[in-house]
Amino acid sequence: MIVVVKNGTTERQIENFCDWIRSQGIGTHLFHGDFQTVIGLIGDTMKLDEEMIHGLDIVESVKRISDPFKSANRKFHPDDSVIDISGKTTVGGDIFAVMAGPCSIESEEQILEVARAVKASGATMLRGGAFKPRTSPYDFQGLRADGIELLLEAKKETGLPIVTEIMSATHLPLFEDVDVIQVGARNMQNFELLKELGKTRKPILLKRGLANTLKELLMSAEYIMAGGNENIILCERGVRTFETYTRNTLDISAVPMLHELSHLPVIVDPSHATGVSRLVKPMALAAAAAGANGLMIEVHNNPKAALCDGPQSLTPEQFDDVMKSVSCIIDAVKATK
Amino acid sequence: MIVVVKNGTTERQIENFCDWIRSQGIGTHLFHGDFQTVIGLIGDTMKLDEEMIHGLDIVESVKRISDPFKSANRKFHPDDSVIDISGKTTVGGDIFAVMAGPCSIESEEQILEVARAVKASGATMLRGGAFKPRTSPYDFQGLRADGIELLLEAKKETGLPIVTEIMSATHLPLFEDVDVIQVGARNMQNFELLKELGKTRKPILLKRGLANTLKELLMSAEYIMAGGNENIILCERGVRTFETYTRNTLDISAVPMLHELSHLPVIVDPSHATGVSRLVKPMALAAAAAGANGLMIEVHNNPKAALCDGPQSLTPEQFDDVMKSVSCIIDAVKATK
Amino acid sequence: MIVVVKNGTTERQIENFCDWIRSQGIGTHLFHGDFQTVIGLIGDTMKLDEEMIHGLDIVESVKRISDPFKSANRKFHPDDSVIDISGKTTVGGDIFAVMAGPCSIESEEQILEVARAVKASGATMLRGGAFKPRTSPYDFQGLRADGIELLLEAKKETGLPIVTEIMSATHLPLFEDVDVIQVGARNMQNFELLKELGKTRKPILLKRGLANTLKELLMSAEYIMAGGNENIILCERGVRTFETYTRNTLDISAVPMLHELSHLPVIVDPSHATGVSRLVKPMALAAAAAGANGLMIEVHNNPKAALCDGPQSLTPEQFDDVMKSVSCIIDAVKATK
Amino acid sequence: MIVVVKNGTTERQIENFCDWIRSQGIGTHLFHGDFQTVIGLIGDTMKLDEEMIHGLDIVESVKRISDPFKSANRKFHPDDSVIDISGKTTVGGDIFAVMAGPCSIESEEQILEVARAVKASGATMLRGGAFKPRTSPYDFQGLRADGIELLLEAKKETGLPIVTEIMSATHLPLFEDVDVIQVGARNMQNFELLKELGKTRKPILLKRGLANTLKELLMSAEYIMAGGNENIILCERGVRTFETYTRNTLDISAVPMLHELSHLPVIVDPSHATGVSRLVKPMALAAAAAGANGLMIEVHNNPKAALCDGPQSLTPEQFDDVMKSVSCIIDAVKATK
Repeated sequence: MIVVVKNGTTERQIENFCDWIRSQGIGTHLFHGDFQTVIGLIGDTMKLDEEMIHGLDIVESVKRISDPFKSANRKFHPDDSVIDISGKTTVGGDIFAVMAGPCSIESEEQILEVARAVKASGATMLRGGAFKPRTSPYDFQGLRADGIELLLEAKKETGLPIVTEIMSATHLPLFEDVDVIQVGARNMQNFELLKELGKTRKPILLKRGLANTLKELLMSAEYIMAGGNENIILCERGVRTFETYTRNTLDISAVPMLHELSHLPVIVDPSHATGVSRLVKPMALAAAAAGANGLMIEVHNNPKAALCDGPQSLTPEQFDDVMKSVSCIIDAVKATK
Repeated sequence: MIVVVKNGTTERQIENFCDWIRSQGIGTHLFHGDFQTVIGLIGDTMKLDEEMIHGLDIVESVKRISDPFKSANRKFHPDDSVIDISGKTTVGGDIFAVMAGPCSIESEEQILEVARAVKASGATMLRGGAFKPRTSPYDFQGLRADGIELLLEAKKETGLPIVTEIMSATHLPLFEDVDVIQVGARNMQNFELLKELGKTRKPILLKRGLANTLKELLMSAEYIMAGGNENIILCERGVRTFETYTRNTLDISAVPMLHELSHLPVIVDPSHATGVSRLVKPMALAAAAAGANGLMIEVHNNPKAALCDGPQSLTPEQFDDVMKSVSCIIDAVKATK
Repeated sequence: MIVVVKNGTTERQIENFCDWIRSQGIGTHLFHGDFQTVIGLIGDTMKLDEEMIHGLDIVESVKRISDPFKSANRKFHPDDSVIDISGKTTVGGDIFAVMAGPCSIESEEQILEVARAVKASGATMLRGGAFKPRTSPYDFQGLRADGIELLLEAKKETGLPIVTEIMSATHLPLFEDVDVIQVGARNMQNFELLKELGKTRKPILLKRGLANTLKELLMSAEYIMAGGNENIILCERGVRTFETYTRNTLDISAVPMLHELSHLPVIVDPSHATGVSRLVKPMALAAAAAGANGLMIEVHNNPKAALCDGPQSLTPEQFDDVMKSVSCIIDAVKATK
Repeated sequence: MIVVVKNGTTERQIENFCDWIRSQGIGTHLFHGDFQTVIGLIGDTMKLDEEMIHGLDIVESVKRISDPFKSANRKFHPDDSVIDISGKTTVGGDIFAVMAGPCSIESEEQILEVARAVKASGATMLRGGAFKPRTSPYDFQGLRADGIELLLEAKKETGLPIVTEIMSATHLPLFEDVDVIQVGARNMQNFELLKELGKTRKPILLKRGLANTLKELLMSAEYIMAGGNENIILCERGVRTFETYTRNTLDISAVPMLHELSHLPVIVDPSHATGVSRLVKPMALAAAAAGANGLMIEVHNNPKAALCDGPQSLTPEQFDDVMKSVSCIIDAVKATK
C-alpha cells in the first residue's frame, strides 16, 4: 500500500504514523519526491482499511498495490476452478454451461415443458425463479416454496441440475435439493446472506450488482469463500448506465478481465442485461466469443403471457437456434487457440 | 399507460391485445398517428407489469402515465408526513432533525462521549453502527449485538432516541428498543427485509441505493408501506458516478424532487456521500438550503483511530461548528418563504 | 408525440395548447384516463422540441413516439447502407472492414512498417492519428499536417485507403486525399464541425461519445446527413462507467441495437474502449460475433515506445493472430445464418 | 509518480525501465514489498504520459502523485483568483456573480425586456445564447451573428457585461465586444477551440462536460491557461447519471472540491442541470450555501413560448424571488465564517 503524505506534514507526524503502522506488523519505507513524500507499507496490508487511512489528516491519497481479494485471486490460484454440479456436470472446465428456463416458475405444465425443451436443445442446467425480486410490491413475487417444489419435479423428470435464486438466508432449508443457489444482482452486497452461504458447500451463482465494480464482485465472492465455500460461479448481467435503449449495458469485457483477476468461472446472462429478446442471440454469441464459461438464458413456452420479464425470454425454438449458433462460435474459439 | 404499437401489426393482433387488457378490467382507447398506432390503457394500471407488456411482439414501447407508487405518492397524500420518534422528537415537521454519532460503535467510553457531545451541540438523535456492511470480509464488521447494548446505554444516559442499521430480518428482535431502524444503501432493494420491516411500526430510515433512481427509492418505501408501516424517512446519500475525487456524488436535487413526488420527509447524509470530512460542512449547508428535513452526520471523538470510515467523520468541535452554521442557513431559508 | 397533462389543468388551457399545436399543422387527439388526461400529437412532430413542450406549465411529461432521426432511420431505409471507400473497398457490405494502424503517426519508418504489416495480415484500411485529442496540453499533440503527409505516403506505397481524425473544420483542406475522416468521441457533439462535414461527400467515421446514448449518436449522424453527406460509418468505442479495471465499458449490445435502429454500418474499436492490449483480442471476437461490420484496431511496431496510447496497441504479430481468429468467428457467424 | 511492477519482471527489465526514465531527467527510487516491486519516479513527471507507462509490459499499475494540472492548481497559487469583467464587475472576489438571461436570444424586444428585468433584480451580467448547440439538426440553432448584435444592444442599454457561448474558433471575430466567452459542456474537450481561446485575454466561462471528471475540467482550463489566458471561470452544470426525474445530476460537491484543488472561481448553473424550473430556486440556494462564487440562471419573459429550453427558465418575477432568497443565504454563509 502506498500512502501519499500531504504537503506541510511534519517529520514528527510522519514518524507517528509509521510507528502506528509498524505496531501492526507492517513495514514502512519512506521516499521523498520533489513535491511530495510517499510512504510504502510492506507486508500483509490486506488487514488495513484503505478508507480509514485515507481519512487521516496527514494523508493526501492511498493506493492499494495488492488486490484486496485473496481466495478468489488468480495470483494465488493460477489454475482455473472447475465447479462440480452434483456430480452431473461442471462449470469452468471443458463443458460450456448453459442454464436455461423461465424467469418465473408459473405452473407444473410450464416448467416441465420448458425443461424438456431446453434439455433437448442441449442446456446443461434448468433455471427457474421461485422467489422473485421485483421493484414493485404490487408485482408478482413468485410461487416461492411451491415454485421450488415444481422445479424439483422438473429435475426429477429430466435429470437436469437446477438453479434458483435465494432472497433471504431464512429460506435456506428450502434449497436443500437445489443444485446451484443464485444470488441476484440486488443481493450481491447483502453480506449477511453471503456469510450464511459461506457456511454451505453448495455451488453459488453470484451475479454482479447493477452498479458494482469487478473488484466488489470479487470481494463478495471472497465473503462466501472466507466461510469455506469455494464453489463460486461469477455472472456478468449488465451494469447500469445512461443508455435507455437497452435495460442495462452488458459488460462483455468483464469476462476476460475476471478471467485474468480470478480463477473462478464466469458466465453471462444476456437476457436480463439487455431486456430485449432479439438481442439475446447476438449477445450470447459475443459472450461465447469473449471466452465465457457459459450462459444463463431465459426460455419460456409462451413468453407473451409470462408473468414476469417476458420481453427478454426466448421461445424454445429461438433457444434451439441460439444453442446451435453458440456451438459454432465455441468451435471457432477453440480453433483460434 | 400508453402502448405504442409496432408498424406492421395487424388489426386482429391489436384487437386481441385490447381484449386481453379489457379482461383485466382496464379500458382501452386507440388512436392512429401518421406513422404509428397508440393504445391508451385507462383504469388501475398499477397492477399491469410495464416490462411484460413491453415484451409483447406487437409492442414498440410503453409509457406509464401514473407513478407506480401509491402510498408514498404526494398526489394521494398532499400533506407532509411527520414521523414521530418515540414521542420525543419528530422528522418532517418543524424540527430540523440531526442524527449524529460514530460510523461504528467501538466502546462504551466512545459512544457515551460522542453522545454527550452531539447532544450538547443540538443533535436530535444519536446514530451509531452496530452491524456494519463492509465491502471486504476482512474489515471490521461491527460489535453487532454488543454495539446495540452500548447504544441503549447512551440512550439511557442522554435521552437521545437512537438510530442504527439492520442488515438481516433475523436480527429484528435485537432492535426492540431502537427508535429508528436504518436500511442501508446496499439493502435498499433487499425486498425480503423490507417486507419484514413493513410488519413493524418502527420508524424506518431508508437510504437510497448507490445506483438507484428516486422512483426505485419510492418503490422500496412502498414495499414497507404496503405492509402497513407508514413511518418512513427517506435519505439521500450520494449516487455512484465516474467522479473519483469524492466517494459518491451527493444528489442534492433529490431533496426538492422527492418533496414534490412524495409526502415523506427527506434527510441527507453528507458524510458517506462525499467520504471527505472537509466537505461535510458545505454539503450540510447545501442540503439545509435545498429544504432537507434533516441531516445524518458522522461524529467521532477520535476520527484518526476510528475503526471504520474515519475520513468522513467530524470531531465534536467540528460538528458543533457545523450545527451553528446549519442553524443560520435554516433561519435564512425560513426567511425566504 | 404523447403529452401527459398535469392534474388541475383547465379545459380552457388544454384547448389553448391544442390550438397552438394545430396552428403548426399537427393534429391533436385527446383522451381522458381515470387519473390523467393525455393528448396525442399526430403528424410531422419531428419539428417540435420535446423539451420545450415538456417545459410548459400544463405538461407533466412528454413521450416522443417516432424516433427523432430520419435520414439515419432504418424505418425509412430498410436496406443496409454500404459505404464506398474511394472505390477500393467498402464498409457495410460483404467485406468485414478492418482499420488498423498506430494511435499516433510518429515517423515515416514507423507508419510504413506498420502499414505493410497490417496489409499483409488482411487489414482493409490504414488508420493513424495526425491530430491527437489529449486530455493534457502537456501531452504529445500529434504531428498534425506532417502526420497526414506521412499517412499519404503509406497509402501510396501500400494502396490501403487511410482513416484519420479531424479536430477542427479549419483543417479540412488537409484532408483532401484522406479516404475516411474520423470524428472522435470528444467531438461527437461538436455540431459546427458536423455541419461542415455534411457539406463534403467524404465517408465519415463517427465515434460514439463517452457518455452519449445511441439516440444522440444517431442524431449526430443526422447532422451530417442533413447536409447531404450520407456516407456515415458508426463506431462503438466504449462508454464511461464506474468500472476502473477497464478504461471504458465497451457496449457490444450497441452493435445489434444500432443495426435495428439504423441502416448505417457499425464498427467497433476494442483498443480505445478497454485501454488494455490483452483485452483487444477477446473483444474483437465478441464484436465480430455480435455482427459488427468491422473493427478499428491499434497496431504499433514498438508499442513500448509509442508516444501515445501504447497500452492498448498490439504488435504486428499479435494483430496477425487477432485477424486469423476474427476470420474464424466471421465464418462461424455466417454459418449460423 | 508510482509505478507498480508486474510479478515475474526480471531485474534486467526493471533496470532498463529505470534507465529510460532517468534519461528524461527524472529520478527513480525502487522498493520491494512482500508481493510486489514498486518504483517511485521523482521530478517533473508532468511530462510523462501516465497511460503510456501503464501500457508497458512490465507495468501493473501507475499512480500519479502530483496533480497533472499546474497553472490551475491551488498548490502553486494559494490565493483565490479574481476575474475582472471589463472593469465593471468581477467573478471570484467579494461580489456574488449572477449571470441571467434567456437560453436563446429571440428578438430585440425579448432580450431588452429580460435585460432590464434581471438588472433590476440585481444580476451582475446578462447571458443569452446566440449560437446554440442542439442535439437535433432540426431544432432551432440560434440567431447566431444577429443574436450577438442584439446582445450588444442590450449591453449598451443596460450597461450589463454580456456572456454568450462560442461553438467554433472561426466565430471568434464576432465575440470582440463580448465580455465573457462561454465554452459549453459539449465543447469542454474541443481542444482546438480551447487553444484558440488561450490566445485571447477574454474571460472564459468553462462548463464541465456531462461526463467529465473535475480533473478533466481542470485539464481543460489548463489548455487555455497554457496559452497565456488565465481568466477562467469554472462552471458546474450537472453530470449525466442514471436518474431520469432530473435532466442531469447537479454535483454541488464540485464547488468545495474545486475550491480546494484550484484557485479559479466556480459558479453553478442550476437551470441546465435540472431542466426543471421549479428546482432552480432550491438548487441556487444550495449552491450559494456550498460556497459558489456565483450562478448562471435562465430567465425568459415568456418561458412558455421560448424557442429552446423553456422548461427550466424562470419568469422575471420568479428570478427576483430567487435573488432575494440567495441574498439571505449568502448573508447566512458569511455569518458562519
